[in-house]
Amino acid sequence: MAPMRAEILSIGTELLLGQVVDTNANYVAQQLPALGLDLYYVSQLGDNLQRLADAFRRGLERSDVIITSGGLGPTEDDLTREAIAEVMGERLEVQPHLEAALREFFTRRGRTMPERNVKQATTIPSGTYLPNPIGTAPGWWVERDGKVIVAMPGVPHEMHKMWEEQAQPRLAKLISGGAIVSRTLKLAGIGESHAEEALGGELTHSTSPTLATYAKSDGIHLRLTAKAATPAEAERPLD
Amino acid sequence: MAPMRAEILSIGTELLLGQVVDTNANYVAQQLPALGLDLYYVSQLGDNLQRLADAFRRGLERSDVIITSGGLGPTEDDLTREAIAEVMGERLEVQPHLEAALREFFTRRGRTMPERNVKQATTIPSGTYLPNPIGTAPGWWVERDGKVIVAMPGVPHEMHKMWEEQAQPRLAKLISGGAIVSRTLKLAGIGESHAEEALGGELTHSTSPTLATYAKSDGIHLRLTAKAATPAEAERPLD
Repeated sequence: MAPMRAEILSIGTELLLGQVVDTNANYVAQQLPALGLDLYYVSQLGDNLQRLADAFRRGLERSDVIITSGGLGPTEDDLTREAIAEVMGERLEVQPHLEAALREFFTRRGRTMPERNVKQATTIPSGTYLPNPIGTAPGWWVERDGKVIVAMPGVPHEMHKMWEEQAQPRLAKLISGGAIVSRTLKLAGIGESHAEEALGGELTHSTSPTLATYAKSDGIHLRLTAKAATPAEAERPLD
Repeated sequence: MAPMRAEILSIGTELLLGQVVDTNANYVAQQLPALGLDLYYVSQLGDNLQRLADAFRRGLERSDVIITSGGLGPTEDDLTREAIAEVMGERLEVQPHLEAALREFFTRRGRTMPERNVKQATTIPSGTYLPNPIGTAPGWWVERDGKVIVAMPGVPHEMHKMWEEQAQPRLAKLISGGAIVSRTLKLAGIGESHAEEALGGELTHSTSPTLATYAKSDGIHLRLTAKAATPAEAERPLD
């Protein structure tokens, strides 16, 4: 079975203005090899319905799993839900139990819920929600035609908790096939192209393992990436 | 005149494996509003010729300026030059003066240049090189049919220097039209949706200035973005 392809979309105009470094994409990217998910595309997008919908449409064509963060807030520039609904051709439906939980969240803090927050209590028919015990934005898990969209909040600690407790376990269940293992060796006293020459064509053209060299401030890093024969092997530390 | 659209591509499989946080995109993103460049798309891509070429092709359709970092090293997985040449339908040509400078770079360090490094001395007919006084990878400035591609190395300090001394001044010359100014106000004691309700529809639907609210750990941030009437205004600190 070919490994499943994942794609990450980080959503929020603040990313495009350079006001925030996208650590969410990095956090998720680190977790995908152990799940056996190949990551080919990461994008940052602003709060624009058309561009978001285009990105979801393209993502569904070229990837099996789209993992997003951001755009799940209550305001008019939070458009992740709307973009997914548009691309899936489905309508947002308020879930009464989610709405009640949301109102309760505000009541506990001595506030009344602004009416626009109701959109945080919606899902679409192909989707279910992912609980967010520490914020008002539930995530979404959308599954249709063999494709999955996981939408999580942009606030890092909310996203991390939702990933660990909800998204990661659901994806692990979904995925079969071998996990990918990646190790990096640091080389000293040799230049990048000399290192590649020394490795020879057979290794540098190999597809499993794949080898790549990188010039870093502390020397040359040689990255080896290969499929693990067993899940246990994927967990084994480098000797 | 409509503002020019920029797009950022950060290139390197290490980004997709989560081994590196893409601070290069953030660095460039921060500099674009003052240049009057609208940034709509940021992507991270691996060292794969086909996916890189696809990204350049799409970028040239939807953006005026594509700014890249990474993939300019001497090894076989450094494919930024090859991808640009493929998309432009042009051939890599070795520039003798660049090759001589490159050999001199190695000689000064008591080494001989590996032959594969010659590709770092190439340009294409629509392009010229951007000097890299602190590394072996010159950048590229490619200009054709009203579109610009700026390719810079991925090592952050080399990229920063090339941006400041080469890319930014060339882009500034190229661009006319008003610069974009963005300011963020921090609000205390009010929720995100209450803040948006208080601002009212006229402001939240306005296109200049545009307003957006963000829930952050230290309160609600209100971002105002508008075109500056004059370049001097773009430089003025917030009162």
